[in-house]
Amino acid sequence: MAGITALETHDIRFPTSIELDGSDAMNPDPDYSAAYVVLRTDAPGPDGNPLAGHGFVFTIGRGNEVCVAALRAHEHLVVGRDLDATLADLGGFARDLTGDSQLRWLGPEKGAIHMAAAAIINAAFDLASTAAGKPLWRYLADLTPREIVDLVDWRYLTDALTPDQALDLLTKAREGRSEREAELHAHGYPAYTTAPGWLGYSDDKLVRLTREAVADGFTQIKLKVGANLGDDVRRMRLAREAVGPDIRIAVDANQRWDVDAAIAWTRELAPYQPWWIEEPTSPDDVLGHAAVRAGVAPIKVATGEHVQNRVVFKQLLQAGAIDILQLDACRVGGVTENVAILLLAAHFGIPVCPHAGGVGLCEVVQHLSMFDYLAVSADKQDRVIEYVDHLHEHFVDPVRIRDGYYLAPSIPGFSARMRPDSLAAYAFPDGAAWSRHAEVVR
Amino acid sequence: MAGITALETHDIRFPTSIELDGSDAMNPDPDYSAAYVVLRTDAPGPDGNPLAGHGFVFTIGRGNEVCVAALRAHEHLVVGRDLDATLADLGGFARDLTGDSQLRWLGPEKGAIHMAAAAIINAAFDLASTAAGKPLWRYLADLTPREIVDLVDWRYLTDALTPDQALDLLTKAREGRSEREAELHAHGYPAYTTAPGWLGYSDDKLVRLTREAVADGFTQIKLKVGANLGDDVRRMRLAREAVGPDIRIAVDANQRWDVDAAIAWTRELAPYQPWWIEEPTSPDDVLGHAAVRAGVAPIKVATGEHVQNRVVFKQLLQAGAIDILQLDACRVGGVTENVAILLLAAHFGIPVCPHAGGVGLCEVVQHLSMFDYLAVSADKQDRVIEYVDHLHEHFVDPVRIRDGYYLAPSIPGFSARMRPDSLAAYAFPDGAAWSRHAEVVR
Repeated sequence: MAGITALETHDIRFPTSIELDGSDAMNPDPDYSAAYVVLRTDAPGPDGNPLAGHGFVFTIGRGNEVCVAALRAHEHLVVGRDLDATLADLGGFARDLTGDSQLRWLGPEKGAIHMAAAAIINAAFDLASTAAGKPLWRYLADLTPREIVDLVDWRYLTDALTPDQALDLLTKAREGRSEREAELHAHGYPAYTTAPGWLGYSDDKLVRLTREAVADGFTQIKLKVGANLGDDVRRMRLAREAVGPDIRIAVDANQRWDVDAAIAWTRELAPYQPWWIEEPTSPDDVLGHAAVRAGVAPIKVATGEHVQNRVVFKQLLQAGAIDILQLDACRVGGVTENVAILLLAAHFGIPVCPHAGGVGLCEVVQHLSMFDYLAVSADKQDRVIEYVDHLHEHFVDPVRIRDGYYLAPSIPGFSARMRPDSLAAYAFPDGAAWSRHAEVVR
Repeated sequence: MAGITALETHDIRFPTSIELDGSDAMNPDPDYSAAYVVLRTDAPGPDGNPLAGHGFVFTIGRGNEVCVAALRAHEHLVVGRDLDATLADLGGFARDLTGDSQLRWLGPEKGAIHMAAAAIINAAFDLASTAAGKPLWRYLADLTPREIVDLVDWRYLTDALTPDQALDLLTKAREGRSEREAELHAHGYPAYTTAPGWLGYSDDKLVRLTREAVADGFTQIKLKVGANLGDDVRRMRLAREAVGPDIRIAVDANQRWDVDAAIAWTRELAPYQPWWIEEPTSPDDVLGHAAVRAGVAPIKVATGEHVQNRVVFKQLLQAGAIDILQLDACRVGGVTENVAILLLAAHFGIPVCPHAGGVGLCEVVQHLSMFDYLAVSADKQDRVIEYVDHLHEHFVDPVRIRDGYYLAPSIPGFSARMRPDSLAAYAFPDGAAWSRHAEVVR
């Protein structure tokens, strides 16, 4: 009988703050980082080495070590488990992790402890799909509706969506699946790019990168806003002039505003047709987002990358607070909680446009959107996955973008695996990449 | 010029799970714990030793080490600061901690990273009030309305309460202050006790402890519910028979239910007149609490011990979702965020009945209620502080209860300081208390 034999952790950080890639109004100097976890087993893997599952918490630098400690805190729930039984009930595995009676005091189901549970749950899905010989999107789409429903922790959801309603939704979504799968293989899943719009970039760089994005086939770009109104109006105007009327330009305030300021500031940008305003205020503020949405329509309201769990997403949907739901693969409780969120979004008819970028977020979240297209919402209308051209070279199975589309991954697993040489070079604080930048190591 | 010279941390755990004290439907076997922090300075203190400030994160065992790591993650924001400048702008100090551009990714303002910031902020208030020679409740009440307003991080609050409205509220509350202070000195602040009602206790123990509580002068008790409906109805009936019609009996479900179940279960207890139903569902579910409140009236709805920050409390008040607000001194971002929450509650006319118990929570939270009575709500109607008779012996300035009232602390500081021998004995995993229970150390 094979089992999970070890929970291995790595503190991985990239010195991105030196280049100002990723700068925005709330995060001026991120060092994109991963609290990285490997679930080791004694089962034989497809490459001859023992089977393993990889996952990570994404952070932006300081505090990554707190997430590593939070990963380690789950060891007693993971090591020594029977592998077959675990893979046969990944919903139960996830509920064991998020339900630990002592650890949940640190949440419940939010913050560092929940992000760590997510990384471990995602690593278990990497294990399961690798063992099954399928990329994760196909592994999930090949489950029966009942198996998908059983992945979800239904606690706190049933006033909005019941398991039976989800079962109906999933059963209906089976229609047309083979056509959608053929289309996914042929064209991929649409992306938008945030690359031109970081707040630290000059106007010239903004305009140049915006034009390049359109030339590369993207039909939506995103600009960071929220630090200075005059700058934002000028940058929005320059971007609109550069792309013309048909390219969608989203703007992202990264939680900078109170409700009234969000409405007033967004209205100043309205002449340049922003497609959505993202994170106008606190990610915890369901009622605030509802007020902002009422105040800025027809500009859409989007949020989700910092939304902590399914309970807050449920309320954003119940309150009619958002037009676009931006799930993140690594903040809420992993694949299982994201399945719940995809089901909620489909039930309420709200498109999901995942948050990505950072390090590795594009690699993993693409699987969730492709699963959604095949088996849940069965729809691509107004749905795009964020894309940022950073740090993909560190992954064994990096994303492939063609003409503004994510191409469907074909390698088995969740695409979360980092290259061994990258794990070594970017280990914090002793890896070679950090010893070159010794002056910024705190 | 004196400064903060060190941020010292301790992992302190009490093996309470062995006695089943503190058991409830969600937390069957807690080991009450503290991620304890000391801010050391090189300024002379009142006792001849250098001035220091003490604070802690309360947890229930596993994961305490994650909170210790989260405390350490703030060191760069604390050590080396000028002491006078820090104590002169504790609001700014708190905003520096909760606003760190990289650490906030782990929240923002929630979970382990926020609880750690809270402990450090509380330690700074212990420092400030110790240096001022006043117990914290008096230190806060002696601030001017403007100084109190400046403690608050107003971001995300202004759609519900503006700084000017808060200033008016605080100014009006100055009337009658000296009479209230005299009354507080004479009688103290009312308490209720959870001691009889832990889920692990037998019926006999429940009835005996309930009668003892009434004999000790308490006019409100609390029972844990939510594991088994038949048991809950029987325990509620036994308690009601034991105390008669005039003693308030609150019930606490510790987040066990979905919305519909919360309403149905609470109605089954209605014949025995529960005073409030506490934590009927997820602490994140503002809209869910509003639905429960509508479904169980006139039974009151209470929540707050797991509410993560002021933004969620704001919405609970805006949505009319609660009758009773249960702030916790050690979960939201310390004294400064609790001042915001007290202001919001007073503005909306909702009584605050703090969560306490655990280890040290009674010691610290009493100061906040007494400050509220003197300077914010100026009201004690329907306000009671939770009291549990656990672990007070480990504190230098333990709470004093007389006839069901908390007596006003008189020793300068925040009463957060643990005795040095307790810090040594309950250090995890190497303290003497744990070596005696080696079999339960994981």
